[in-house]
Amino acid sequence: MIIQLKNNVTTARATELATALQAIQVTQEGATLLVTPSAIKTINPAYEADVDKIFVMETDIQLAHPSFMSGKRSVQWGKNTIGGTSNNSVVIGGPCSVESREQIMQSAQLMQTLGISTLRGGCYKPRTSPYTFQGLGLEGLKLLAEAGQKYNLSVITEVKDSSHIEEVIEHTNIIQVGAKAMYDHSILKRCGTANKPVLLKRGFGTTLQEFVQAAEFILSGGNDQVILCERGIRTFETKTRFTLDLCGAAYLKHHTNLPVILDPSHAIGYAYGVPDLSRACIAMGIEGVLIEVHPNPKVAKSDASQQLNHQEFTDLFNSLNSVAKAVGRNLI
Amino acid sequence: MIIQLKNNVTTARATELATALQAIQVTQEGATLLVTPSAIKTINPAYEADVDKIFVMETDIQLAHPSFMSGKRSVQWGKNTIGGTSNNSVVIGGPCSVESREQIMQSAQLMQTLGISTLRGGCYKPRTSPYTFQGLGLEGLKLLAEAGQKYNLSVITEVKDSSHIEEVIEHTNIIQVGAKAMYDHSILKRCGTANKPVLLKRGFGTTLQEFVQAAEFILSGGNDQVILCERGIRTFETKTRFTLDLCGAAYLKHHTNLPVILDPSHAIGYAYGVPDLSRACIAMGIEGVLIEVHPNPKVAKSDASQQLNHQEFTDLFNSLNSVAKAVGRNLI
Amino acid sequence: MIIQLKNNVTTARATELATALQAIQVTQEGATLLVTPSAIKTINPAYEADVDKIFVMETDIQLAHPSFMSGKRSVQWGKNTIGGTSNNSVVIGGPCSVESREQIMQSAQLMQTLGISTLRGGCYKPRTSPYTFQGLGLEGLKLLAEAGQKYNLSVITEVKDSSHIEEVIEHTNIIQVGAKAMYDHSILKRCGTANKPVLLKRGFGTTLQEFVQAAEFILSGGNDQVILCERGIRTFETKTRFTLDLCGAAYLKHHTNLPVILDPSHAIGYAYGVPDLSRACIAMGIEGVLIEVHPNPKVAKSDASQQLNHQEFTDLFNSLNSVAKAVGRNLI
Amino acid sequence: MIIQLKNNVTTARATELATALQAIQVTQEGATLLVTPSAIKTINPAYEADVDKIFVMETDIQLAHPSFMSGKRSVQWGKNTIGGTSNNSVVIGGPCSVESREQIMQSAQLMQTLGISTLRGGCYKPRTSPYTFQGLGLEGLKLLAEAGQKYNLSVITEVKDSSHIEEVIEHTNIIQVGAKAMYDHSILKRCGTANKPVLLKRGFGTTLQEFVQAAEFILSGGNDQVILCERGIRTFETKTRFTLDLCGAAYLKHHTNLPVILDPSHAIGYAYGVPDLSRACIAMGIEGVLIEVHPNPKVAKSDASQQLNHQEFTDLFNSLNSVAKAVGRNLI
Repeated sequence: MIIQLKNNVTTARATELATALQAIQVTQEGATLLVTPSAIKTINPAYEADVDKIFVMETDIQLAHPSFMSGKRSVQWGKNTIGGTSNNSVVIGGPCSVESREQIMQSAQLMQTLGISTLRGGCYKPRTSPYTFQGLGLEGLKLLAEAGQKYNLSVITEVKDSSHIEEVIEHTNIIQVGAKAMYDHSILKRCGTANKPVLLKRGFGTTLQEFVQAAEFILSGGNDQVILCERGIRTFETKTRFTLDLCGAAYLKHHTNLPVILDPSHAIGYAYGVPDLSRACIAMGIEGVLIEVHPNPKVAKSDASQQLNHQEFTDLFNSLNSVAKAVGRNLI
Repeated sequence: MIIQLKNNVTTARATELATALQAIQVTQEGATLLVTPSAIKTINPAYEADVDKIFVMETDIQLAHPSFMSGKRSVQWGKNTIGGTSNNSVVIGGPCSVESREQIMQSAQLMQTLGISTLRGGCYKPRTSPYTFQGLGLEGLKLLAEAGQKYNLSVITEVKDSSHIEEVIEHTNIIQVGAKAMYDHSILKRCGTANKPVLLKRGFGTTLQEFVQAAEFILSGGNDQVILCERGIRTFETKTRFTLDLCGAAYLKHHTNLPVILDPSHAIGYAYGVPDLSRACIAMGIEGVLIEVHPNPKVAKSDASQQLNHQEFTDLFNSLNSVAKAVGRNLI
Repeated sequence: MIIQLKNNVTTARATELATALQAIQVTQEGATLLVTPSAIKTINPAYEADVDKIFVMETDIQLAHPSFMSGKRSVQWGKNTIGGTSNNSVVIGGPCSVESREQIMQSAQLMQTLGISTLRGGCYKPRTSPYTFQGLGLEGLKLLAEAGQKYNLSVITEVKDSSHIEEVIEHTNIIQVGAKAMYDHSILKRCGTANKPVLLKRGFGTTLQEFVQAAEFILSGGNDQVILCERGIRTFETKTRFTLDLCGAAYLKHHTNLPVILDPSHAIGYAYGVPDLSRACIAMGIEGVLIEVHPNPKVAKSDASQQLNHQEFTDLFNSLNSVAKAVGRNLI
Repeated sequence: MIIQLKNNVTTARATELATALQAIQVTQEGATLLVTPSAIKTINPAYEADVDKIFVMETDIQLAHPSFMSGKRSVQWGKNTIGGTSNNSVVIGGPCSVESREQIMQSAQLMQTLGISTLRGGCYKPRTSPYTFQGLGLEGLKLLAEAGQKYNLSVITEVKDSSHIEEVIEHTNIIQVGAKAMYDHSILKRCGTANKPVLLKRGFGTTLQEFVQAAEFILSGGNDQVILCERGIRTFETKTRFTLDLCGAAYLKHHTNLPVILDPSHAIGYAYGVPDLSRACIAMGIEGVLIEVHPNPKVAKSDASQQLNHQEFTDLFNSLNSVAKAVGRNLI
């Protein structure tokens, strides 16, 4: 249950009510909200005088639920906006990993040339083996930020565990919470108090319900700049690396108020399918795609098989513009 | 291994070689092919004089493999063609089940009005419970055929088990093999000798490898008019009925020579997501979609939740045309 | 809803009521039952005079539900019984495929030596490729029956599609419906009128709900000799061939009145794990296991990797006896 | 590749070699090991004089691989040992969450009465919703430790994220890394330098390969006291909470040198199935089980449905002893 308090309720009273109702207190657009466990469906009549509105919820998808706030929440970074009243869809491009200054500068230049707003690049790699390339860490993050400044791009990188969350908040424009980190309460709660948008990736074994509830950790911390990112789930099919869940994307589009971005590169894991899948994603009418591109995919230090080269990416971007127009979207 | 024999090899000699090589003999466009188990990688030098070409295969995806025949095989029914050198994508519309003459005539009229070529309607329903509506059977099939004739449409219905395969072959223009029937060798082998296109649905628990191998049963029977249809696989996510596997569709498009059709309606199971998913499917650049539409979905006797009404379908069809154009496809 | 009619209700009246209630009429232990769709929860007061008892059901698991009949139904073949008041667990052993007279006789002799009652052997193989060994068919089935007679064993083989169902009914003591055939209504309905026990395998993509509903097709046809067999489901894990679902087995044991048999060989697909898994299965307190054994697994024509040799099977059988005793079961 | 250096190789030289080979340096039982990426299969002949033995590995399962060390590694805590030459299987019992002093003392007393060595209790709960009970945190951990001391038991609790790893290391005898935290490199690396056994839970979406590779993070950090715990994977089946992967357990038993423990309570999620599943687990011949028990499951603050009451747990424990004996195991 979300309880929107009247404007004249004092801070002390709000805290008292929150304690009584086992609720989390959230301030949103000037209003004070108390979010109780969804199992609580009614309030004590003694509290009614303090209450402006009540939203009774079936599950713990609450702040993200369209019955609380319809439409898509607006998320902004730099000069860019997705969601809200915009019809913008963002194309976030860049390499899987930041590998060197030269490499990330080439990627940044490509984005600038194409008029793309936001550059991605992994610095803290959540590799499954201790014996492979683990990313450049803070050094890579600084290179990414430098590339962003030089080419006038916003940048995004992924948090893998809570040991480097502060570095990521400091140096990026959007904080990406990785698929393997998305249950981490330390990270989610820290994102809840950050003053930057958060792109939350769905775990590959995560249900849609759990995924949106992870977003609730951030929203209930006071940060309403949350983007949901579907990047493929793990199924019995292994000819492709994961299975991009566009049924799930349709569900998130319809059943939440959060912008949705899709990641076809990680989903299929092979460059041959990325262009068709990217066009399919944009045709869904969602808020964006993440696409991996590398100056020379064959020598990439991670995910070599799934990264497009610059020409392939350029061709794809042009075709995405056509698809976007066909469904009334504007690429940024 | 596919062995293409020289034209002058006698029938008797071909049979002798087939026996020696444990091969299935297939005639295709005038040529005699021997398809051996893929484990066989070499032939006895004594046979070489009879051989025109040899295609060594890694797995039992053989006749469907692009290294045997590149591009997409052309499939025709009525005046319609998909695959081959065409850029056609077919939209096959109609109700989940044929329920009455009035209902199927309404559906047929809608297809005619929109310029759609092919009408679907289930007659033999593979329901999972013995206590629910099982379809009208042959009576429904005759109504479907009647609707096709009256409105000048091709028709397709699904084979559920081998007891009614002959009826379906007789009364439809395309034979649909259902997701639950696609491992049935009796059905597959009978389709292999039928003179009509076969739309083969992927089972919801079926790997891509097994799926294409099921097509090999039909192809090796001599019928090369096979369409692959992905209709959602079963995953851990249950907010949607199934998970439409577009990564799998990308794989099939790239790794086989068979046209691919997608079924977003059965995949998601809810009408709200069908338009976005259908647009995504068409944007993939594949050969078609199956979309369920019902004059009055609320009273449908099966799959009520996922069928569009006539207005929704009409709006969707118009937007599909825009998406098709954006990716260079022509809807039929 | 299951409606048990009073004994004095006439056949004509029962048929009238069945039609009015969209019910299937089933005779069980002398009583006439009408099984309606579970969505029907009440009956017309006009019918009440004809009704002895009513069982209102939540889902279409009806005749198999413990609230209709508690305990486990008793299933008999030859001198063997499982379920009912027995604590018997059957070990069904034999090769994946019947390959030759010599091979199946060796297997039969091993069963006889160990005091095992029932011999398995595949004759119609549901292979996923048209280019591999498809089984000996009727010839194999006759060899299996011959081996059973010679060594005084009951025999079981699998129906793959409806083209050979009559042969299997004629020559076996238990009809096995394969994992890929279990949605086939022709087969299920024919089993419903057969006078022999049916071992119904769960499809590897089949939910427990659908699985038991498939059993309802047989039960509602009048054959209450149904055994449920879990044989591994398809999951994201591919180091093993399938994932044996013992949580599902616990569910079936608790939530149905049908005996449960497990198939560890097909589940894991590798001989190294079969002994441990078989012991785990028996420790579950269920009605039996199917275990594949071959005189010389290395040269087996199908599933070579998962078959035990005679010594391994003998050692396993002895240890199964110890585990069975520890949980109060008796091996037959 | 694992390179075991000769005893006379200097520290400086070892470091030089490690750098040259991109290897992690591990000291184990006095020997210095260099573990390179498994992609490296040969070494420069110039290094051969420093090398005692080489183990070439197919994948990055290296230190855990039986070809490096056969048998099961021995893991010790308090007076307890599993693995090595022992045939011990541990039963770890206790509530899902530590809720109060009274509750955890009751649980501890039950363990003592039954002669069970180790008490579990969750303190930092990885709940999927921010609006539900999140555990007592450090307060709970201190209560757990107090209960352990009072009743002379070892204790184990779960690390959910890296913010409380030091507390858990300080107050427990075994560090449990939760299913949602098992990809967290901060946690894994910290465990690698801890002087206590680590029970590593498999993520519900984690492949066996990734699972064992997560253990490699700990092993390559120098801590060889690692226990693998399978606790159910997420599949399409939702009648049970997860699917306990005993095929996977058989794989781990056969293909790694790490002790294996199973968690039937979290797998099925319902108390009715826990006894049968626990007996199945013990019959697998693995090193232990985790079973949830609560003085009054109905009022439990988390996972109420799956916890046994004290009588059920006592009955189960007695039957586990019988099964353990049947398979030559000794419960501790």
